[in-house]
Amino acid sequence: MRKFDILVVGGGPGGFVSALLTKRLSPDKSVALVRRDEKAIIPCGVPYVFGTLKDADKNILPDAPLKNAGVEVVIGEVSSIDLKEKKVVLSSGEELGYEKLVLATGSYPVRIPVKGTDLGNVFYVVKSYDATAQLKDAIEKAKNVVIVGGGFIGVEIAEDVARNYGDKKVMIVEMLPHCLQRNFDPEFCELAEEKLKSLGIEIKTNTLVQELVGEGGVVKSAKLSTGEEIPADLVIIAGGTRANAELAEKAGLKMGVFRAIVVDDFCRTSDANVWAVGDCAEKRDPFTGKPSPVMLASIAAREGRVAALNILGIGSKGLRGGTVPVFSTIIDDLAMGAVGMTESAAKAEGFDVIVGNATAPDKHPGALPGMKELRVKLIFSKVDGRLLGAEAAGGASVGELVNVLGVAAQLGATVYDLVTMEFGTHPRLTASPIAYPILAAAQDALAKLLK
Amino acid sequence: MRKFDILVVGGGPGGFVSALLTKRLSPDKSVALVRRDEKAIIPCGVPYVFGTLKDADKNILPDAPLKNAGVEVVIGEVSSIDLKEKKVVLSSGEELGYEKLVLATGSYPVRIPVKGTDLGNVFYVVKSYDATAQLKDAIEKAKNVVIVGGGFIGVEIAEDVARNYGDKKVMIVEMLPHCLQRNFDPEFCELAEEKLKSLGIEIKTNTLVQELVGEGGVVKSAKLSTGEEIPADLVIIAGGTRANAELAEKAGLKMGVFRAIVVDDFCRTSDANVWAVGDCAEKRDPFTGKPSPVMLASIAAREGRVAALNILGIGSKGLRGGTVPVFSTIIDDLAMGAVGMTESAAKAEGFDVIVGNATAPDKHPGALPGMKELRVKLIFSKVDGRLLGAEAAGGASVGELVNVLGVAAQLGATVYDLVTMEFGTHPRLTASPIAYPILAAAQDALAKLLK
Repeated sequence: MRKFDILVVGGGPGGFVSALLTKRLSPDKSVALVRRDEKAIIPCGVPYVFGTLKDADKNILPDAPLKNAGVEVVIGEVSSIDLKEKKVVLSSGEELGYEKLVLATGSYPVRIPVKGTDLGNVFYVVKSYDATAQLKDAIEKAKNVVIVGGGFIGVEIAEDVARNYGDKKVMIVEMLPHCLQRNFDPEFCELAEEKLKSLGIEIKTNTLVQELVGEGGVVKSAKLSTGEEIPADLVIIAGGTRANAELAEKAGLKMGVFRAIVVDDFCRTSDANVWAVGDCAEKRDPFTGKPSPVMLASIAAREGRVAALNILGIGSKGLRGGTVPVFSTIIDDLAMGAVGMTESAAKAEGFDVIVGNATAPDKHPGALPGMKELRVKLIFSKVDGRLLGAEAAGGASVGELVNVLGVAAQLGATVYDLVTMEFGTHPRLTASPIAYPILAAAQDALAKLLK
Repeated sequence: MRKFDILVVGGGPGGFVSALLTKRLSPDKSVALVRRDEKAIIPCGVPYVFGTLKDADKNILPDAPLKNAGVEVVIGEVSSIDLKEKKVVLSSGEELGYEKLVLATGSYPVRIPVKGTDLGNVFYVVKSYDATAQLKDAIEKAKNVVIVGGGFIGVEIAEDVARNYGDKKVMIVEMLPHCLQRNFDPEFCELAEEKLKSLGIEIKTNTLVQELVGEGGVVKSAKLSTGEEIPADLVIIAGGTRANAELAEKAGLKMGVFRAIVVDDFCRTSDANVWAVGDCAEKRDPFTGKPSPVMLASIAAREGRVAALNILGIGSKGLRGGTVPVFSTIIDDLAMGAVGMTESAAKAEGFDVIVGNATAPDKHPGALPGMKELRVKLIFSKVDGRLLGAEAAGGASVGELVNVLGVAAQLGATVYDLVTMEFGTHPRLTASPIAYPILAAAQDALAKLLK
């Protein structure tokens, strides 16, 4: 039996980073990564394979960094974990021993309880090379694409297909009142929906798919809760995802409310030699202390770093009490981002909030070419002024602007901090120092706090 | 004599923000802003008036926000300040009384000791409407433009002229070994210089202008320290600037080493009723505690906010020990940014530093259209791991990426904080969660720290 100082199970971002960072920081240790698929993929790139890249091979997570660092990559499916013997067993029968084990087994799509999901041309969004390549082929041939679920993945696939093909009708069916509603307040969701519609995408909110109807074993239409039956020669189900933690549960690790592996602030599980990172590990909301169902590649990568440092005995503040999610996306030319809690979510949790809003040109003077309006909303706790959440919409600069707010929220910034902080500005790159919308929104909130 | 609760002298960003924010947060107080020029301008927009906007009227700082908030705007030149009587005297003879006074009198260009600077078609870069409009007219007619000084303003003017006119030869003469050397380490300066050269700009570094030679009272050439005499029908001197603090000095306020007004962490001067903000106020480097000659519109605006809160008795952490400058600029399609100290400056101050470097595609996968390489350098103190400075170069996302680093530095982040922090990523907007260069550079530094 081969034995490794550090064995990582799973080839997504959490596993990749855990393996690479432990090896880089401690080159004398033996590190192996075992994963099921021959080719690993970039999970966030999946929606862009279909219309922009048009090639699953352009969305590969390369092995070179792992191999160059000296991480052994093993292709194989883990069928069980033996915590006592400190080994994993592969479906081939091979056993791999470990001193420290990192579980990064990811997530899988939740099956929806709808008749007809077993028909041909009905796809869940599975984050693997083969599944991505198959779905791409199906999209190329389809005429009427129905996407079930208007969260990030559903919206991004719809956008990428509508923007890059002229010959397809695309519809999003979402059960909530708005697309992207888990991450944005309604006024921002509406900006997104307008932009989606401008690309020709039809949106049905407050609507459930009740049945998929087939002909010759292949889907041909979808019956909706509105009573309509709409043509559909391709259905993509982009609903929720669930932690893939069965192996861990069978091995006897402690599981949380979302059936994910319970971890502490350093990604340690209930077994002293096992860490869990990414979608398979439970998250915690640092503002409420509650478990949270959020899943993102960037969070998985973060947890990979936290676990690596902890495994090697390098001091850090770990997860700092939980995960402040930082999302971003772009719909045509409208970039959107969100940090932490929405106003609606904060209120639902019982927070007394103060909200600041601001809009400014993202270049200054606004007469400069390529200017777009940049809108920022900040959500503060009224009691101590702490930043609980933020939303932004504008041009591509939103992608890093949300990280400004993400770092501020993670370091515990308050409205008073934000108002007195230095933000660099440049005519062609940002809003003006006078109207910079993070500052202006903080000032707006402060004015309300003082009333 | 009219008397105001809050009187602000100066119409640039520092004065504008001081007046606007005090009035907005305390609408019952009377607030006036007195400035010399009829039209206020956006100082950072000046370089882009010449080639991009081609119109000084497109670079106006509008009065509407001030007037809508109820700030009285007085056009007039302040000729003296009477601290005892709490009033200022205008050159018209009018007197304006105050309860609290904010000085935001800006800066002026340092005169260089070179023969011939009084010739026609020799311009200093003066941040006023009239001066900008005149220089724009002169640039339109010029053939051989020589720019003295390769700092931000010199580089930006050179770039804007070269990029927008096909018919002009542009040369930068810089006395230091590199352009932008006060803000970037040599490897980043070289990226900037390559890009400037690709626009056809000629660069002479390690070179002084020794004499400007005229014909009929108008400049026709420049003699350089290299012995060359180069044709020049327009010379723009973009050298240093000096605090415009003579009024304050005459009034008896305490002055600092750079002849700027001494202020504390809340922008208070040596007189209990007077605050100073922007270029006329002394800055402090929070890492060394030393006075610093840095001047930026964004810093002026920040100090305006700090002064406004302090005047109104609203608690804040003020300047937090000083100013971490956050710069950004863009040369053609190469955006560059810097935060805090360069590696060279930190070493010169005696810091034991650890540097981390990383380069990554600014989209992921890198096959996505519009991808640019994004390069990040982080400078940490070896003793406590604190982030002292950062430099970045890449696409337009650098404009907000430096603010991520600016907020981190201002909130005291260490290499351990950065490595374990969440950064949002998106295929079309940022680098990948695995290669995100702030993280990757922090990891690089950490690996060196642990050796």
